Formats: sequence, C-alpha cells, structure tokens
Amino acid sequence: MVSLLILSKHADEYRRIIDAAALPEALIVTASNADAAKTVGADCEIVFGEPSLIREALSALKNLRWVQATWAGVEPLLDPQLRRDYTLTNARGVFGGLMSEYVFGYLLAHERRIFERRQAQQEHRWDGSVTGMLRGKTIGLLGVGSIGSHLAQTAKHFGLTVRGYTRTSEDCADVDAYFHGDSLPAFARGLDYLVSVLPNTTGTRRLVSADLLAALPSHAVFVNVGRGSALDESALIRALETKRLAAAILDVFEQEPLPKEHPFWDAPNLLMTFHTSAPSLPADLAELFVTNFRRYVNGEDLLYRVDFERGY
Amino acid sequence: MVSLLILSKHADEYRRIIDAAALPEALIVTASNADAAKTVGADCEIVFGEPSLIREALSALKNLRWVQATWAGVEPLLDPQLRRDYTLTNARGVFGGLMSEYVFGYLLAHERRIFERRQAQQEHRWDGSVTGMLRGKTIGLLGVGSIGSHLAQTAKHFGLTVRGYTRTSEDCADVDAYFHGDSLPAFARGLDYLVSVLPNTTGTRRLVSADLLAALPSHAVFVNVGRGSALDESALIRALETKRLAAAILDVFEQEPLPKEHPFWDAPNLLMTFHTSAPSLPADLAELFVTNFRRYVNGEDLLYRVDFERGY
Repeated sequence: MVSLLILSKHADEYRRIIDAAALPEALIVTASNADAAKTVGADCEIVFGEPSLIREALSALKNLRWVQATWAGVEPLLDPQLRRDYTLTNARGVFGGLMSEYVFGYLLAHERRIFERRQAQQEHRWDGSVTGMLRGKTIGLLGVGSIGSHLAQTAKHFGLTVRGYTRTSEDCADVDAYFHGDSLPAFARGLDYLVSVLPNTTGTRRLVSADLLAALPSHAVFVNVGRGSALDESALIRALETKRLAAAILDVFEQEPLPKEHPFWDAPNLLMTFHTSAPSLPADLAELFVTNFRRYVNGEDLLYRVDFERGY
Repeated sequence: MVSLLILSKHADEYRRIIDAAALPEALIVTASNADAAKTVGADCEIVFGEPSLIREALSALKNLRWVQATWAGVEPLLDPQLRRDYTLTNARGVFGGLMSEYVFGYLLAHERRIFERRQAQQEHRWDGSVTGMLRGKTIGLLGVGSIGSHLAQTAKHFGLTVRGYTRTSEDCADVDAYFHGDSLPAFARGLDYLVSVLPNTTGTRRLVSADLLAALPSHAVFVNVGRGSALDESALIRALETKRLAAAILDVFEQEPLPKEHPFWDAPNLLMTFHTSAPSLPADLAELFVTNFRRYVNGEDLLYRVDFERGY
C-alpha cells in the first residue's frame, strides 16, 4: 500500500477518475490548497498535482518520494533553494494535440485573413481576393520535445517544411533539418513562421532576442506557446512597430496576468491569448498519472522524469 | 501532333508552365476570352481552361475531343442543351489540401473563439477562460470524393470522428461510418460539424434542408465549401436566428457575388468568405493537365472523367 496525495484545484475531479481506475495499492487523500495538504497529506509518499501548490506544501511532506506534476512546465519546483530529494515527473504527451490546434488555428487565421474577411462582410463587400496558405511554407520550432514533435507532425500534414532548433536531440522524423548551438541565424533565415515551445530555463532566457527577430524575413509570424521568459518582449515590440515582423501570436508572457500598462495590449499586429493554448484536461492527466503509478508500484522506471539541473 | 487551346484568364501563366514541361506533341494556342478562342482555337482538338469561358466557345470548336477543366465544379458544361460529344475531365486532387486549411482554420477559429479573444485584448481584459477544441468532436462530410477524403484525413489528424454521406461510395479509410440514401437523419444526429462539399447536381439540390438542419444539435456548426445550390438558404437563416444552430461558415452561395440585399450579410453567427476557400493554383492545375495530356497522347484512359448525367 502506498499513500497518495492529490493536491490540485481539481482534486475532486482527479480523485473521481483515479478511483474509477481502481488502483488497489493506493491510499488516497485529497487537498485543494497547501494548508490542507500539510494536514491530510504530510505522510504521503506520492503527490499528484499543480507545481505551484506543491511548492507551498513541499517542506511538510516528510515521506515524499515522487511528485507527478499536472503541468509541462515545473518552474515552481526548480528553485535551487528547494529540496530535490524526490523524483519529479512532469506532464508530457498530453498537450501536443491541443498546442497544434492552437498554433495552426492562429496561423490559418493569419494566412486566411479571417479578421479582414469579417470586416468585408460587415461592410457588405464581396472580397474575392486570394488569401495565403500554409502549404509550401517553412516553420521553425524552437524546442522539439513532446509538444514540438506534435507541431512538426501537423506541419507536415499541411505540407510545410519543418526546421527544429534543439540543444542536441534529433529524434523527430517530421523535422526536415535540425539546428543547434550558435546556428540560430541559419535556423531563422527564410522562416515564414517561428514558434517557441521553449521551457523556462537559464539556457532559454531571451533566446528570442532582437538579433533572432532581425534574422527573420519581414513577412514572418512569431508564435510563443512556451514560456514568456524565452522572449525579449521589448525587442518584439520594436520589430512589430517598425514592421520588421508581420505579426506575433502570444499565449505566454514574462508576467502573467499581463500588467495593465504593458505595451503588448495595443501593439500592432499582435494577437494575444491568455495562457489558454493547451488547457490541462483532467481525464488526460489522470490517465498519465495512472500509467506512471503502475510503473511506480511495479518498480519500473517512471516516465517523464525531470532533470532538476536541466529544468525539463 | 495534337492541337491545344488554353482558354483562361490565366492563359499566359498556364502557357509558361506548360511550355516548361516541353510537350513535344503539342501545338499550343492561347485565348483569354471566348471570342479570341473562336478565332485562334476553332480547329483545336484539346481545350484546357475555365468551364465558363469554354461554354461560350463550345459550339465553334469543331474538332473538339477533350476538355480539361481547371475547376472541380463544371456546371457551365453540364447544361443538357450543350453538346456532349467530347470527353470532359475536371480538376481533382488539387483542392483537398487548401480546402482542409480553410475548413479547419475556420472550425478552429470557432472553437478557440478567436474573435472574442481579440475583443478581450482590445478591452485590455485578461480572459483565461478555457475554449473549445476539435479533439473528440464528430464531423459529418456531405460528399466524400477527392476533397472530402482530404478533409477526413485532416479530421483524423486532429482526433475527430468522421461520418461520410455519399451516394454509394465507401472508398475513404479515414471515414469511420458511412451513410447513404434516406439515412440523413441518422447521419446528422449528434454531429458537431456538418461540412458540405457537394457539387451542383439535381441530386444535391437543397439537400441541406430545414429538416437536416433541425436534426443537428444546437451547438453544431455548418460549413459550405461545395456549391450554394446544396443549401436551403432560407432554412439556414431561420436556424441561425432561432439559435437552433450555433454558427455557419459559407464560402459559396446560390448567387455569386452575393446580392447586396441578401440576409446572409447580417445573419447572426454567420461568417462568410467569397468563394475563396480553395483558389486554383496555376502550377497545380498545369501539372494535372500535363499528366492527363501525356495519357491522352499515349492512348491511355484519362483521369478525372466527368459523367455528364451524374454531374461529377
């Protein structure tokens, strides 16, 4: 018998799904905030939940051996001040499909000029001009992990050429050309779309710099679905204002919610969403947890282990 | 040596591409309107071009043996009053990818509430509410030919269930369930999206009727990328006004351009484009023609033959 704490705003929903999986080896308690967790879950060996809540309860979890995060990004638990005497696994393989829906939905909206078309309709104006298309374009992915690989697959479905920029990995068959290290200018040259799925690590901080943006063609579109810290926000504003970049689609920001006075709100050709590109679906995450839990009780290696130093 | 007339508004562009293919057996003339065609092309055995222009010149083409249309829909040549003593082939296999970009671009815009999101941005309002997704939805395709099959493939990529309604064919492996004949109500029941790619034939006229629209769930979205004649336009207006249908996305209309006083312009939750969903790309169509031309001179069966009676 192993003890499990579900620590999440959606703890009841997770519990219902996990109960349905009938894990005979689990003794389960739930909490929706850190204080409750410290009371009911202090002895638990396993925690499944949101990194932000787990961080607050972390010091009280005296038997902790494994944390399964419901997020892909686990920054709250990577602070070097925090303990690292447990196995941390994150959520992978569950966000790729939704990220593809987001990225290609917005790229299609850009190519098809969906806002202009609606404007024409509102003016009762038949506008038969031909719009753009994805087919034949080149997309560059900053980061080709589980999410980037799914984006690459969707890109190939729509007939795009795919470039991938990674630290070292070259695992995805849907990437036509890989770039690493100081080859960012070559990676950027001629791209129609630049998409960042980079996590927040010391190595990714402001990787999307003024120089990288300047290396893109002026018709290019930048999409950020990774973390806001990977972007030099001031450089993006300047690139949009001087039309050295056609458009930006941002789901994530250095500070969230975005401050009221931030220039992004009114920047030209910038569309923002609000960290909603790939919502965490309880059914997906509970299934991922159950799979990993079975591996845990069987003494197998856990999937999706995070390297505290590397940050993902 | 066979004589070829290119009769198209884009005749010069087609000629340039076809010349580059260096067809040794072809004597080529071009015309951009029917009057010119009657002068320079009256003796030609093959015509490649737009059905609307070819119709006007048809009676003067005394040696005509084969017409390759640049369109998928060839209604102008199907009038029973017109001659049918030649082989008619249409354009297939070239529009599917662009149609997929259009249909899924607009469905994603609907699910992701792209217009509402932009409104929130304009109001400087952080709106972190979760939007919808394609994954897990069910799409119904009215017509599963070359274009419908491509839509089915994209639908499977995004994790949808696919139903297909056809006369008899069941050729597409990406369709999960086929429906025919009087099974339209069963086909429609529970659909999230209904997409018509139907051509304009006597059998398809107003197939999207008040009854069919009433059989859809009230959260369903209707998309028309086939022909306007397949839709009962008044029934659609009523379904939208009474909220028995969530939205409609229309690229084609009974009359084009849409008349100024048509109620579609201001109908609630109706987005229109202007017969631009899948532009004819000269490079694609010239390639298709060259392939069929080689078959013609080699005495092989032509691809994409149209049955004048069936209408496609």
